[in-house]
Amino acid sequence: MTIGHVTLVGAGPSDPDLLTLRAVRALERCDLVLYDALIDPEVLEHAKRAQRFYVGKRAGRHSLSQETICRMLVRAGRAGRRVVRLKCGDPFVFGRGGEEALALADAGVPVEIVPGISSALAAPLAFGIPLTHRGVSSSFLVMPGEPADVWREALGAGPRPKTTFVLLMALGRRAEIASHALASGHPADLPVALILGASSPRAWAWTGRLADLAGAVIPDDRSDLPGLIVMGDVVALSHRIAASTSRTETSRESTA
Amino acid sequence: MTIGHVTLVGAGPSDPDLLTLRAVRALERCDLVLYDALIDPEVLEHAKRAQRFYVGKRAGRHSLSQETICRMLVRAGRAGRRVVRLKCGDPFVFGRGGEEALALADAGVPVEIVPGISSALAAPLAFGIPLTHRGVSSSFLVMPGEPADVWREALGAGPRPKTTFVLLMALGRRAEIASHALASGHPADLPVALILGASSPRAWAWTGRLADLAGAVIPDDRSDLPGLIVMGDVVALSHRIAASTSRTETSRESTA
Repeated sequence: MTIGHVTLVGAGPSDPDLLTLRAVRALERCDLVLYDALIDPEVLEHAKRAQRFYVGKRAGRHSLSQETICRMLVRAGRAGRRVVRLKCGDPFVFGRGGEEALALADAGVPVEIVPGISSALAAPLAFGIPLTHRGVSSSFLVMPGEPADVWREALGAGPRPKTTFVLLMALGRRAEIASHALASGHPADLPVALILGASSPRAWAWTGRLADLAGAVIPDDRSDLPGLIVMGDVVALSHRIAASTSRTETSRESTA
Repeated sequence: MTIGHVTLVGAGPSDPDLLTLRAVRALERCDLVLYDALIDPEVLEHAKRAQRFYVGKRAGRHSLSQETICRMLVRAGRAGRRVVRLKCGDPFVFGRGGEEALALADAGVPVEIVPGISSALAAPLAFGIPLTHRGVSSSFLVMPGEPADVWREALGAGPRPKTTFVLLMALGRRAEIASHALASGHPADLPVALILGASSPRAWAWTGRLADLAGAVIPDDRSDLPGLIVMGDVVALSHRIAASTSRTETSRESTA
């Protein structure tokens, strides 16, 4: 029996045009795709000859446990299948890709990992926010909204004017994050952005000040989208940069 | 006179297969490309009909100043050209893309920004290092080797077991970085990787412990490659994950 192989592919941030050439090739050659939620149907179109299997998360619950997904990948690889495991963003940034790669490596199934564009970088970019900018910010820290201990510690250490903070999957926690940051000495007028839907056509952003973050209102028709928070002086550049790009729907606090 | 437009394109980390579909399309449609050092010739091949102009850095010096590049972009845009400004990695991560976007926006030239895969993420991935991994690391901080104040402050705050540190363009500073980290209480056996050449065919990595970083030897035939340092427990996963990937040349300290 020939052993197959598994390619963990980062599909990038919802926009099918942001797929890499290597991801397209992997999809064209595979015979089985296991894909996550939020994968654009146009991305799956590249896998014309493959069986497609949805293993994503919905409303906070996995339809399949991570252990089950790992077992499926190992079994398919051992059965000689050419598998693509298609994940949003980058497989090694909050994507559980490391766990899948380890399971495959431990089982002796060859694995290839194709990086993708992380929404941590692409979502701010889509709204004209550079994560680093000469004289403004020279580092960035990416962390999740859950669990809270990571952002509690990082923001609790006080202001870091040269660092941009990116908080992924953090919308539901925005009031807590804002009050903790303010209590830790971050300035009330620190520029902040709330970005929903990364770089999808339904993407939406709010920009304002840290003091107004807790009260930022998300339109009902966007409340299903995943979102992130960007904190730092680079956010103030978005007004000038985005003005010249085609990017549109930004809600701006008049006070900002 | 019709006004042109400028697309700032992230070419990703040296590997031409890691170009996005949107980057390929921008290159196919443009009539002028201004490109950086370290751009693979195969990437430029997509811009068949375009005039190509090298504006990169060599041996630490810009062949053209950033101000000159901004002026060229504005002038070409105003003259009706369809320009691609091709940059390594992602245009908004240490790429001076923000400065170019601002110059264009201020001059009223339409600008589009196409994200690329940052080597900060792709280089560790190429050697089996996930930046985040459940139970090991849930955040990552990206910062440059120069100027030193950013890493001095971040590492000086002491150990952060749940954070992965990524230091870009930091090879020349590795002895200082290691001694500062050790003096600040980071453990001597903290797993560390030194990665050269991101995901190019000549990519090379060393993995070991923080205590051995200062003495890590880079082969003469790779000393021209740009490099980064990854510090954190996730680095220890690379031995297991990389074993099953096609990725090859890693030098490993026997003590690690």
